[in-house]
Amino acid sequence: MADKIKNDVHLALVHYPVYNKNGETVVSSVTTLDVHDISRVVRTFAVNSFYVVTPLKTQRQLVERLIEHWMTGYGAEYNPTRKEALQATRVTHNLKETVSDLTKRCGQKPLTVATGAKQFSNSIEFRRLREEIRSETPILLVFGTGWGLEKSILNEADYVLDPIGGIGEYNHLPVRAAIAIILDRLLAR
Amino acid sequence: MADKIKNDVHLALVHYPVYNKNGETVVSSVTTLDVHDISRVVRTFAVNSFYVVTPLKTQRQLVERLIEHWMTGYGAEYNPTRKEALQATRVTHNLKETVSDLTKRCGQKPLTVATGAKQFSNSIEFRRLREEIRSETPILLVFGTGWGLEKSILNEADYVLDPIGGIGEYNHLPVRAAIAIILDRLLAR
Repeated sequence: MADKIKNDVHLALVHYPVYNKNGETVVSSVTTLDVHDISRVVRTFAVNSFYVVTPLKTQRQLVERLIEHWMTGYGAEYNPTRKEALQATRVTHNLKETVSDLTKRCGQKPLTVATGAKQFSNSIEFRRLREEIRSETPILLVFGTGWGLEKSILNEADYVLDPIGGIGEYNHLPVRAAIAIILDRLLAR
Repeated sequence: MADKIKNDVHLALVHYPVYNKNGETVVSSVTTLDVHDISRVVRTFAVNSFYVVTPLKTQRQLVERLIEHWMTGYGAEYNPTRKEALQATRVTHNLKETVSDLTKRCGQKPLTVATGAKQFSNSIEFRRLREEIRSETPILLVFGTGWGLEKSILNEADYVLDPIGGIGEYNHLPVRAAIAIILDRLLAR
């Protein structure tokens, strides 16, 4: 395994199956800004790997091109902090492939933890997940783009993380912001 | 005063004076995505107001047009969660005007707290600032775009907030992510 293991937390940004604002299951588009933002947050909290998950070949190619641009040649020289951020970023077709890649890399199946804005019966508290992380279990945090992960993903996950919970009823954080807050809560010293 | 006061925390996103990547003082461009993302985070944590601060008239007009689009007519109908998020968003020319507007609105001068990636002699801990917020002092949190707030802003602020501090040396969070983490640390229940 070529990676330097920093901790055994991994992150997947899922573009299918997710909901659109009408509650229909769709493939959402990859936002390159998401890739940059989340890569920086991932790097800041020493998350081991960041998978951009999409079934669309052209979208996977877009992310691969983006990574290549900033990792090599002019891009790497122009902005080395982007290069550093993107070192943990990978591309996969679906969640199954992500888990199977991680199982190979970690030598054991990761615990999958889905995230969302609602409370579920199998929800896990931040404090408890922090303990799991300290016990060095490999963890895959799964985030949905669009209007959130399809129910099937929540049902199949080992846990669903408690919602962030702001003040009051408003419940519409951008996934970029949710990831920043969740990694800070789980991983900051 | 027409606003419903939720708490007495306010936020300014400053586009001048900030540094570019070569350490020169510049005016950075307003990113409309910043306005949407930060408005949602602000709304989630019941921050009272969000000032987009730029000396450029065309950029202020851009933000005003954006707010108008989503607050009225088709935009408001198409995406009501954006409308709700943008209710606290305002535009000012500079930090001085922001403080003076806030002083009028709050009936007293706010404590200004600058933010950045470095530690300073007048740094304040998250825990202490949380206490100040609970004591109902009006607080203006000041964030810089680009490569961060110019030194003059840090020197003039009442406090500089402790840096977020990830794991290791990497220190390049997008301002959107920094705002999400800082508001969560200061305001989440």
